[in-house]
Amino acid sequence: MSSSTPHAPSSAGHSTGVVAIEWRQQSLFLLDQRVLPHQHQMIECRTAAETADAIRDMVVRGAPAIGISAAYGFALDALAGRDLQAAYKVLAESRPTAVNLFWALERMASLNTSDGQALLAEARRIHEEDIQANLAMGQFGASLISDGVQVYTHCNTGALATGGHGTALGIIRSAFADGKIQHVYAGETRPWLQGARLTAWELMQDNIPVSLVCDGAAAQLFRAEKPEWVIVGADRITANGDVANKIGTYSLAVHARHHGMKFMVAAPTTTFDLSLPSGNAIPIEQRPMHEVTSIQGVQVAPEGCHAINPSFDVTPAELIDAIVTERGIIRNPSTEAVAALFAAN
Amino acid sequence: MSSSTPHAPSSAGHSTGVVAIEWRQQSLFLLDQRVLPHQHQMIECRTAAETADAIRDMVVRGAPAIGISAAYGFALDALAGRDLQAAYKVLAESRPTAVNLFWALERMASLNTSDGQALLAEARRIHEEDIQANLAMGQFGASLISDGVQVYTHCNTGALATGGHGTALGIIRSAFADGKIQHVYAGETRPWLQGARLTAWELMQDNIPVSLVCDGAAAQLFRAEKPEWVIVGADRITANGDVANKIGTYSLAVHARHHGMKFMVAAPTTTFDLSLPSGNAIPIEQRPMHEVTSIQGVQVAPEGCHAINPSFDVTPAELIDAIVTERGIIRNPSTEAVAALFAAN
Repeated sequence: MSSSTPHAPSSAGHSTGVVAIEWRQQSLFLLDQRVLPHQHQMIECRTAAETADAIRDMVVRGAPAIGISAAYGFALDALAGRDLQAAYKVLAESRPTAVNLFWALERMASLNTSDGQALLAEARRIHEEDIQANLAMGQFGASLISDGVQVYTHCNTGALATGGHGTALGIIRSAFADGKIQHVYAGETRPWLQGARLTAWELMQDNIPVSLVCDGAAAQLFRAEKPEWVIVGADRITANGDVANKIGTYSLAVHARHHGMKFMVAAPTTTFDLSLPSGNAIPIEQRPMHEVTSIQGVQVAPEGCHAINPSFDVTPAELIDAIVTERGIIRNPSTEAVAALFAAN
Repeated sequence: MSSSTPHAPSSAGHSTGVVAIEWRQQSLFLLDQRVLPHQHQMIECRTAAETADAIRDMVVRGAPAIGISAAYGFALDALAGRDLQAAYKVLAESRPTAVNLFWALERMASLNTSDGQALLAEARRIHEEDIQANLAMGQFGASLISDGVQVYTHCNTGALATGGHGTALGIIRSAFADGKIQHVYAGETRPWLQGARLTAWELMQDNIPVSLVCDGAAAQLFRAEKPEWVIVGADRITANGDVANKIGTYSLAVHARHHGMKFMVAAPTTTFDLSLPSGNAIPIEQRPMHEVTSIQGVQVAPEGCHAINPSFDVTPAELIDAIVTERGIIRNPSTEAVAALFAAN
């Protein structure tokens, strides 16, 4: 890997100046998300192994962005005539739990070719299809938003986490481009602070007015300002429309309902896990305590302090007004409404 | 001011090893809260001016603790035969908006004496009365708590903020001493992180089992564990029982109600402002954005990022099950219930 300053946006045609994944000069360039928002630096990957390093080291994060990066990494080795079995292996081992990573690698391998140009074209298609899905979600989601409103979002679901544009943040971009959104509130999203570090930065890059909010202040803000929508992404959606997403999402859904606001989830259909009947089947993963007891490397709590650190929570379908996918909108999600979307497409 | 390591607890008789304000060797010793929890250091104040410096520099925080410190500071200058008008002035100017500071100084000045021993005795009484009020609240509050339960608290309302024992944290201490509380969850309380820095530390000092929780994770925790009570302090309580307190309190009250839990506020009767009919009359103070955009001196959000930073929120009386004072309990607070407590005592 080597690094350079950011280049002109790719030709992908999405509506943001934020470019996190870029193919140019026969190399893959990834925006280094570890040093955002204070430094804007592209990391150059010239091999599958360098791409795997970048994925493992969190240069790139967000399931769709990881899958796209892995596809380009596979193409890099094909173009150079290197061993593609080794390329597959090193990439597959970079983040062992990322579903999109395996999906993208399988799609590349299923071409059954070592032709570098053909594989590069497939990686570009994977990238472009992700952007197109986000743009479709953006249009569907924006159609639900009134003119001149404020919205609230959580975590980072933008160009940094996807091929470009974003899911929940893509809807906000589309609705802002349509002149509908006046102001965005971004929850800081403890413990990882993706709202402060990434979402605020993305919105500022696109000159979309944003105010950062501590997670505990959201309820007070909802009462005082009553934003029209809370708009969030999803890690997994079960057959009945329950949504697992970044910790703090469920809290916002309860507050949205309490204050008579509306709650929207944005996710591609690949996020649905129809094998699970409801969110009760999803175990809540506990992550290391030090993510809570220290912040950005600074120890805050007493040494030895116990902490609980669930990485996500489950929002029940009854608190959700709409799930927006690239295939259309599921209103008042339920097992029937989810099944209807999949049956219709 | 000079500093030393902590000494044995004072003879005040409260049920914690945490001593934040101590009179010994003809000096006032204050636990330096700026360096907690990583260093435990007592700052020695030998004059009113040194005490004023300690208050201004946030060695001591929490309205009752500031008032008690100022009273001792006034006695220091009386014992040394210094000018008491100057002592009053320098202390009164140390934190110009702290109501307890003026109340304590007025009480000292109203003795109309320059006798150092008489003034020291009055400062000790102010200190002891605060502890006794906290212990009374502790007993009243503990009577509401079932056996073997978990509770959740927010911000810091303990020995560090008062003369000793604490308000909400005093109730938790009393109920733990009674064998009722099994486990305490402490919300970290962004942006200032008093939960992480101070409350977790106090509870660990007293060997009370505590887990730190990010504010946005409270709702998920409530659903999974359903603690019996959320117990918080108050900055101001209006005639109808609405409670202004640290930002994040209102969020917890909504979640407690949503999850069928109970919500308790602990505050001495001096916290009531009966001149205000309801919380709608309380303006929400906005504090500097940098408290949100940076954490413990580390810039997190992009440079120039806008943030909203309300310092407190208002919890409506209808979300509160009990307000516990040193004079008794107000159940299901309302204008009538508040008036009844004040009429009866």
